[in-house]
Amino acid sequence: MKLKILWPGKTNNKDIRDLQEFYLDKIDRLGKFKLIETQEAKGIPEKYSERIKEIEAKGFEKYLKDDYIICLFDRGKEMSSKQFASFLSKTSMNYPHSITFILGGFAGLADSIIKRADLLLSLSQMTFSHELTRVVLLEQIYRSLSMIKGMKYAK
Amino acid sequence: MKLKILWPGKTNNKDIRDLQEFYLDKIDRLGKFKLIETQEAKGIPEKYSERIKEIEAKGFEKYLKDDYIICLFDRGKEMSSKQFASFLSKTSMNYPHSITFILGGFAGLADSIIKRADLLLSLSQMTFSHELTRVVLLEQIYRSLSMIKGMKYAK
Repeated sequence: MKLKILWPGKTNNKDIRDLQEFYLDKIDRLGKFKLIETQEAKGIPEKYSERIKEIEAKGFEKYLKDDYIICLFDRGKEMSSKQFASFLSKTSMNYPHSITFILGGFAGLADSIIKRADLLLSLSQMTFSHELTRVVLLEQIYRSLSMIKGMKYAK
Repeated sequence: MKLKILWPGKTNNKDIRDLQEFYLDKIDRLGKFKLIETQEAKGIPEKYSERIKEIEAKGFEKYLKDDYIICLFDRGKEMSSKQFASFLSKTSMNYPHSITFILGGFAGLADSIIKRADLLLSLSQMTFSHELTRVVLLEQIYRSLSMIKGMKYAK
């Protein structure tokens, strides 16, 4: 299974970044995984969110080939961790090239990216900050890989 | 609104603990809030999970009076962040004494505690580690208080 995550720019919150590194390190030991911090639209006022999303969409597009694309999306499909692990395991058989997760920045994802998604995934009915979403997704990927490998993972 | 959180013992993962402090600091500026790290059942093998839950239940009970009790529970009710904020706002009018959140340790919550809950709340269909659940809940409480106070909160 090859997994890739794309999100725009570095994580600003130091505590979240440290926790992100903690999970990345654990994931690295379990599988082929790549995090790509794509182009971030900087210095554009928040009210021009469409412009921000367009610029960041171009940053994502560079890294999408014939990957299976999962976009994190508020109104996406919810799954249990067990269903998520089983889904990744099955999908990786049909997409050995890569399963790619895309997470939007604070402005969210452009429609052009959402339309390319094979799956829209929601981690919760609640809204998490876009940076907290990064660590929650990493923890779920780590949890899934542990399950797939039959390892015991701390509750 | 007076809020209280109970969970057993200190958070072991340093990165999660740091992030927890980050949100606690933000919450402290917005409202009356108290985190109580209750008795943790230490040194008991994991297989005796009922015994662990019983000991930790006693730790919680010391701090429960006529509070409105919300237990975090896998199969609990899911809400959007907006619904959660509105729920806290309404409930605090009937329970000015305190709304108390209870989070289990790695073994989960004893039935005796779950039975006392006025609300069983689930943050996600996915399972988060019990320590990650702590920061996700704190972020939601911070988000709710920001919404209630009409502040803008980073997406």
